[in-house]
Amino acid sequence: MLTFDPHLQLALDLVGVFAFALSGGLVAVKKRLDLFGVLVLSGAAALGGGVMRDVLIGDLPPVGISDWRLLTSALIAGLVTFLYHPGVERISRFVRVLDAAGLAVFAIGGSLKALGAGMDPLTSVIVGGITAVGGGIVRDVLAGQVPEVLRREMYALPALLGSALIVTAHHFDAVSPLVIWGCVALVFAVRMIAVVLDVHAPKPLRTGELT
Amino acid sequence: MLTFDPHLQLALDLVGVFAFALSGGLVAVKKRLDLFGVLVLSGAAALGGGVMRDVLIGDLPPVGISDWRLLTSALIAGLVTFLYHPGVERISRFVRVLDAAGLAVFAIGGSLKALGAGMDPLTSVIVGGITAVGGGIVRDVLAGQVPEVLRREMYALPALLGSALIVTAHHFDAVSPLVIWGCVALVFAVRMIAVVLDVHAPKPLRTGELT
Amino acid sequence: MLTFDPHLQLALDLVGVFAFALSGGLVAVKKRLDLFGVLVLSGAAALGGGVMRDVLIGDLPPVGISDWRLLTSALIAGLVTFLYHPGVERISRFVRVLDAAGLAVFAIGGSLKALGAGMDPLTSVIVGGITAVGGGIVRDVLAGQVPEVLRREMYALPALLGSALIVTAHHFDAVSPLVIWGCVALVFAVRMIAVVLDVHAPKPLRTGELT
Repeated sequence: MLTFDPHLQLALDLVGVFAFALSGGLVAVKKRLDLFGVLVLSGAAALGGGVMRDVLIGDLPPVGISDWRLLTSALIAGLVTFLYHPGVERISRFVRVLDAAGLAVFAIGGSLKALGAGMDPLTSVIVGGITAVGGGIVRDVLAGQVPEVLRREMYALPALLGSALIVTAHHFDAVSPLVIWGCVALVFAVRMIAVVLDVHAPKPLRTGELT
Repeated sequence: MLTFDPHLQLALDLVGVFAFALSGGLVAVKKRLDLFGVLVLSGAAALGGGVMRDVLIGDLPPVGISDWRLLTSALIAGLVTFLYHPGVERISRFVRVLDAAGLAVFAIGGSLKALGAGMDPLTSVIVGGITAVGGGIVRDVLAGQVPEVLRREMYALPALLGSALIVTAHHFDAVSPLVIWGCVALVFAVRMIAVVLDVHAPKPLRTGELT
Repeated sequence: MLTFDPHLQLALDLVGVFAFALSGGLVAVKKRLDLFGVLVLSGAAALGGGVMRDVLIGDLPPVGISDWRLLTSALIAGLVTFLYHPGVERISRFVRVLDAAGLAVFAIGGSLKALGAGMDPLTSVIVGGITAVGGGIVRDVLAGQVPEVLRREMYALPALLGSALIVTAHHFDAVSPLVIWGCVALVFAVRMIAVVLDVHAPKPLRTGELT
């Protein structure tokens, strides 16, 4: 098994934290929260997924509350959002793009960290998926909106596909920086295509519906 | 102390997962989510309580994200709900029945697992209660509705009673499959009676109320 | 390093639990929940922050679900709220005061417990902050309202300041009961001043806003 580069893990975490912190900050701006509301929602969105991951695999305390680089990254992203943000009507689109970036990075990084902690392949895929969607769920629940992961476009699926891919690569000792960033790019691309095309998953048939 | 049968623990978990997954899927259908939304809400409802239990007693990774049988059970229940579900106007009733079944099984199963992990009696009762109500809380918070556990009929109480009963039985070395399923049946029966009779707990007096 | 008095830790926990349980009960009364809804929301508000703290620092099972004194304290506070509560129109004000008391006690107590568990200073500050705001977030999310921590007055900041202060005191071996209660008083005072003066943090500029 290849030893996995801790610098690369940190790089994945930092990119994900920054992207989700921006997304959290933008949602806070949209909800007209003040500076501290923006920082709190930035932090919760940025660090929520990673904290869930670390709690689930038993790596305590979670890096999201102990590594100053992640915390600083989230804080800076929150401040940036507060000072420079697009008009409210354009925020939703930006949130989707940033969300897709965080989703991609955290899915791959979460699975790799789970594998590194000795989790079996299935657990590692699920942990990757939870890392990816966790921050967005925390963000949306705190902000009082239905989590993105439950809305109609494909969201959890690209994350799980990416996680499954990197876990498979790990099984065949084929994890390299190129493969890692390739998987990240793939998840991001699939998610963005879904956003752009507004791909709908099938909806349940409704029988005897009243409205 | 009797050694507790791991097959029985798995059986309890599987029944609870299946019942809560159906309930989560039905809530998702009611909220008009698409296939993935249905699967995500099924999974969250089915596995949320057990994941909380395992995190609280330190049994990591939680079986809810590592045992393929539980995951598969949740997935199948989600798919079944998506494909075959009653008309929207009848869903709420079905959710209540399934919810009661999951509540009963998880209360007893959660307490037994906590006892098996060496928790003291009080902790085991509370863990049973959290296992029982956890999945429903996750389901309702994600779906943006007030959790069932806070609504007006008796909900947490039957679960806690069942947990206290099985913990007492354990104290007297009287845990057997018969006792276990008896406790499950009791919790289910009490909860269903409360649903059917729409039993109200007392409400606080309101002084100086405006509306 | 001074050995930290476990009785003082318990005292901090008890005060915080009681204050947050009252706040949770009052929110439940305001939402017109029944007796069990009041008790559940009391318990969730009272014990949520401490459970998060213990899960994050790996001290399992969390005292919030294993120490009968904390559970009893939460239960009594819930019952008290149910039986004797102010008119609905005065509840919001009471919730804020109790919330401030719980915030102060949990911030300092959470940081001290984290330090005692061997966490580094940064982690201990963050854990103190999460202990302080966690219960209120659980309360507000369950009750379906935007968490206090995201609303406009200063909320997380006083908690983090208090946590930083006690962690600094710990660094210089200067933790004593006097210092501890001094920090608690400071956090409470800063938070109450913010509530009374309705201090607003700066709000983001809005460009191109439509509404």
